[in-house]
Amino acid sequence: MIIICEAKATETQIGALQQKIQEAGLVVHRSDGVEYTVLGVVGDRNRLDVGVVSMMPGVRDVVLVSTPYKLTSREFHPEDSIVRVGEKSLVGGMEVTVMAGPCAVESEEQIEATAQFVAASGAQILRGGAFKPRSSPYSYQGLGVEGLKLLRKAADRNGLAVVTEVMTIEQIETVCEYADLLQVGARNMQNYPLLTALGHVGKPVLLKRGMSASIQEWLMSAEYILNEGNAEVILCERGIRTFETATRNTLDLSAIPVIKHLSHLPVIADPSHGVGIRRFVAPMARAAVAAGADGIMVEIHPNPDKALSDGPQSLPFEEFGLLMNRCRIIATTIGRRLGKAK
Amino acid sequence: MIIICEAKATETQIGALQQKIQEAGLVVHRSDGVEYTVLGVVGDRNRLDVGVVSMMPGVRDVVLVSTPYKLTSREFHPEDSIVRVGEKSLVGGMEVTVMAGPCAVESEEQIEATAQFVAASGAQILRGGAFKPRSSPYSYQGLGVEGLKLLRKAADRNGLAVVTEVMTIEQIETVCEYADLLQVGARNMQNYPLLTALGHVGKPVLLKRGMSASIQEWLMSAEYILNEGNAEVILCERGIRTFETATRNTLDLSAIPVIKHLSHLPVIADPSHGVGIRRFVAPMARAAVAAGADGIMVEIHPNPDKALSDGPQSLPFEEFGLLMNRCRIIATTIGRRLGKAK
Amino acid sequence: MIIICEAKATETQIGALQQKIQEAGLVVHRSDGVEYTVLGVVGDRNRLDVGVVSMMPGVRDVVLVSTPYKLTSREFHPEDSIVRVGEKSLVGGMEVTVMAGPCAVESEEQIEATAQFVAASGAQILRGGAFKPRSSPYSYQGLGVEGLKLLRKAADRNGLAVVTEVMTIEQIETVCEYADLLQVGARNMQNYPLLTALGHVGKPVLLKRGMSASIQEWLMSAEYILNEGNAEVILCERGIRTFETATRNTLDLSAIPVIKHLSHLPVIADPSHGVGIRRFVAPMARAAVAAGADGIMVEIHPNPDKALSDGPQSLPFEEFGLLMNRCRIIATTIGRRLGKAK
Amino acid sequence: MIIICEAKATETQIGALQQKIQEAGLVVHRSDGVEYTVLGVVGDRNRLDVGVVSMMPGVRDVVLVSTPYKLTSREFHPEDSIVRVGEKSLVGGMEVTVMAGPCAVESEEQIEATAQFVAASGAQILRGGAFKPRSSPYSYQGLGVEGLKLLRKAADRNGLAVVTEVMTIEQIETVCEYADLLQVGARNMQNYPLLTALGHVGKPVLLKRGMSASIQEWLMSAEYILNEGNAEVILCERGIRTFETATRNTLDLSAIPVIKHLSHLPVIADPSHGVGIRRFVAPMARAAVAAGADGIMVEIHPNPDKALSDGPQSLPFEEFGLLMNRCRIIATTIGRRLGKAK
Repeated sequence: MIIICEAKATETQIGALQQKIQEAGLVVHRSDGVEYTVLGVVGDRNRLDVGVVSMMPGVRDVVLVSTPYKLTSREFHPEDSIVRVGEKSLVGGMEVTVMAGPCAVESEEQIEATAQFVAASGAQILRGGAFKPRSSPYSYQGLGVEGLKLLRKAADRNGLAVVTEVMTIEQIETVCEYADLLQVGARNMQNYPLLTALGHVGKPVLLKRGMSASIQEWLMSAEYILNEGNAEVILCERGIRTFETATRNTLDLSAIPVIKHLSHLPVIADPSHGVGIRRFVAPMARAAVAAGADGIMVEIHPNPDKALSDGPQSLPFEEFGLLMNRCRIIATTIGRRLGKAK
Repeated sequence: MIIICEAKATETQIGALQQKIQEAGLVVHRSDGVEYTVLGVVGDRNRLDVGVVSMMPGVRDVVLVSTPYKLTSREFHPEDSIVRVGEKSLVGGMEVTVMAGPCAVESEEQIEATAQFVAASGAQILRGGAFKPRSSPYSYQGLGVEGLKLLRKAADRNGLAVVTEVMTIEQIETVCEYADLLQVGARNMQNYPLLTALGHVGKPVLLKRGMSASIQEWLMSAEYILNEGNAEVILCERGIRTFETATRNTLDLSAIPVIKHLSHLPVIADPSHGVGIRRFVAPMARAAVAAGADGIMVEIHPNPDKALSDGPQSLPFEEFGLLMNRCRIIATTIGRRLGKAK
Repeated sequence: MIIICEAKATETQIGALQQKIQEAGLVVHRSDGVEYTVLGVVGDRNRLDVGVVSMMPGVRDVVLVSTPYKLTSREFHPEDSIVRVGEKSLVGGMEVTVMAGPCAVESEEQIEATAQFVAASGAQILRGGAFKPRSSPYSYQGLGVEGLKLLRKAADRNGLAVVTEVMTIEQIETVCEYADLLQVGARNMQNYPLLTALGHVGKPVLLKRGMSASIQEWLMSAEYILNEGNAEVILCERGIRTFETATRNTLDLSAIPVIKHLSHLPVIADPSHGVGIRRFVAPMARAAVAAGADGIMVEIHPNPDKALSDGPQSLPFEEFGLLMNRCRIIATTIGRRLGKAK
Repeated sequence: MIIICEAKATETQIGALQQKIQEAGLVVHRSDGVEYTVLGVVGDRNRLDVGVVSMMPGVRDVVLVSTPYKLTSREFHPEDSIVRVGEKSLVGGMEVTVMAGPCAVESEEQIEATAQFVAASGAQILRGGAFKPRSSPYSYQGLGVEGLKLLRKAADRNGLAVVTEVMTIEQIETVCEYADLLQVGARNMQNYPLLTALGHVGKPVLLKRGMSASIQEWLMSAEYILNEGNAEVILCERGIRTFETATRNTLDLSAIPVIKHLSHLPVIADPSHGVGIRRFVAPMARAAVAAGADGIMVEIHPNPDKALSDGPQSLPFEEFGLLMNRCRIIATTIGRRLGKAK
């Protein structure tokens, strides 16, 4: 912690600061500049409350030297983490993993047709919502457990792993029965009791970025899971909220290289929720791969115009097939491999 | 629903649209402009998915005529709702209700001293956190049930009602035992299972605005609670996330008159979380009252520099006393009454 | 400047940093923490480029100790600045100054009727646009010099000062002939050639905050004017851009106390542009006064529904009269005086 | 224009609306829904002020059917526009144009070395600032005309075109002498007098997006230039302002496909300003090409750590060379060609 004193701070104020630091069992280094005195504090940061110090008389600013997250930080874990999903997929290594499927599981026909296409196109993980968080109480809320069963069956028949959202602590056990990767939605990114519970689960977690979460807060939420003992966390950029209304959210692709720099955890992108409009999904999916994402999650549907939920952002199969082909080459360009080896 | 066709939409496309509408059992009015054809759809909006329509060929834009919220809308409930909290407080009428107390309950001495001052200064409701959502797993997480007991006791001894946060469905029953008003924090504004559960509780709910929630989304979250049968909801503006970093959040006081216009529900402001810095709290509290808030919620602490949580935004007692006096006059200026009648 | 080294920074890297600092003629203090080494740099900050240092190997972060603005900072000018506008108005002292008038000057009748009401209601400054920046080339662009003349005449007849916008360097001379206070619009807040030119003018400047300008950038823009020799600058908060669409902008009233803390310059608020919708203007004007603004600028119009420009945010006279009465009491509550002494 | 009446609008109010529309010489279609009456207005939108209508009694909302921009809209100009820059470059066709160079021109050696590398790597246009808009009056402001001369000479010697910023109307003539493409910076995107003047210039204009400009406002600013007679406009996405602080701006790559959908004008991306940190530039440049940008503008410097301006975001030559190779393949993947044919 570094304390910058006000230009007009008195010796008495600076003395009181130094005493406060020493009382907390920390060491203080004083440095007198032309305009400002700066106090460097050495020792365990948790022994001194930054807020309290920042309100003491004579204090102009307090700067934290260390990041508030440790387990997720690349500083103390320089190698990339690789997260196993299901039996065959490794996320975060040289592969670019593709997760695809409908927004919501609607019927056996729909999910089976989708799973077949997903597998045929070389993707590895089937996505599909069974429990849906909806901003309106009057909207379609998902098939629930029945949807999970359909999802699992379709995935198994086609050699795919399953990712699906878990919304509450009570759902965790059930979802674990059917899914290989547990998704935490953007609205739950700071649902700390849920994150804590997921820290005790033997399955990997896909943690979506909150709609207005800073990258640091996102990593802090991952820290909750790692701190409870589950190190299998994949991050997913899905768009942040800005003033722009031409797209549903603003997909922040710069989060991809930033996360790769700050953390060892894998990070993927969800262009479907990121833009929310079908015609803009493929360009952004390609861009995500080019930016170095460890994977993409794309909504597809056998008949998007009949989808019960988020149809307007789902790609029809043929467009998804074309997208896969293009992303495969882009991945190769930056030394990676997209999709199942064939 | 109004469908605006593309300038180059063909008769076949427009015909397909009209057919789709009629198949849904709705009536369509067609209007041909100079550049665009517009289709007006009459009937129950839930029978036609706006997303699906918006992706049909020839469609340029779809405009929803009715608001997605009904029960919270002033359109169908023109009179102000008044919510009773505890035995004596009515929020949303001519009174401006004041809720004050520490961020977190820390000890019997702390909460008792605070409650005495809160009561003496004319405020009606004691606030204090027992379960604390913290962005870091390494931060102080609250006293839990023990905190609730201390809060209740201090409130009872001083004739105050109690507001405190409930973070999970499991906590609801316990919190209901001790609190008169159940607070849903900003991070839980879109925790739909929690909102649904609170719709079945016989206590009023204080619903904080999410950090990046639009006013419409906020009202939709209230709708979840009302739709389950609990009409006793108070809204609380607590700052939104913007690019500005000089304050912790940007307290959006214009939300106060906007909510009063759109909804019949009471709305209060929380300047302490809104700005996050002690010296800016009082001006914003005064501004909230001047803007027409039905109440304010202010963090105070007998010794803010020793507070375990959010001390830097807590007012010391004497500043809070001065603030109360000023707000009392401002309330009178706009025809309202702040604080307990004496 | 404080340089925080990476946890894994080598002695060679730290040595190179120290050398770089010393070569720039600055003094360096080294402090070794448990995880990080910190270098404190003492001396003239302009001798070392923060960007260059931040990209040197081994550097984790660079923190600037001093603010980039000096002349506008309260640190080196603790007393409030008071800016004289016209012969009679002093902005920034104990008075709360009211500026009112139409968005655009439209006709002699309109501006004369308005000026009479403005004067009668106790406001001191007449506002009105003659050169209008419009986001569409197809919108009404103002009366130009003819508008300035009408504005001046109406103000003089009613004992008011004049504030109006200047959009280009070429307009400065002309606008100076007719106006007492030169307004720089939000879109020009970072038009540095214009700011520089206004630094050489013998009239005060009203600098509006840019739509997405941080408070620090806003103060830096004021610094441009002060640095050229014109210290008569008044700041004006007029709403920032956020994701919220219920209002045109989000009026950031917390900027008022923040500016009062950071700078000695007067700061006023413009609720009319801040919210953009008539029915929300009065509550926000009251809130601005309660928050401690040194003035408010309000759009009024004898017949708002016929206004050529921004009619929907203009108050009719009677509403403005009521607002003045309420704001007068609010100002008194916090020890100030609003409007002309009578 | 579509007018949606309030649920409780009276016949008298609706009648007044209809009369107002007819008086403006427009045709009105009335449609009575279950809850709301909707009025469709047919005819020239400029004859009726949307703001005025929206404040009339009984009006709930007004929806504009047509876009406010015409000349820039793809609706009335379905084919891609191709803009010629210098003698050899065509921006907006099948080529992906690369513009590269230092943030600021510093010396003959610097710009000559850069131009050689730019040409050798297959890029077509040399960028470099001579007039620099700087947020601090104490920062380096550029070499001015001397910089323009150096830029032109270096470009000519290496067969490149020149793009550079023009900040004021007065500079236009001089900049036109030396540059092939006139850049309007983000801070000037809504400097309407400057845009109007550039509408009369016989050179193409590169219009950067304002820091908080919506895509619609950006297109409206382009409309200013086209409306004055200059149709040679290229748009440039350079990052918008959000709450995220890990990058300088948030590069909104979804703006690329959105602009391609809404407008016929070419659109490029500037990842250097978009992220502001060297290590994140290359991934975002690749992403921009993958998203379908018609070009990229990248800051490079022979010795970035010694750059006088924005060094921390400049790529060293070798990194730029690698980036070019990768982008070339990505462009091919989506059916385009990047860089000079060789």
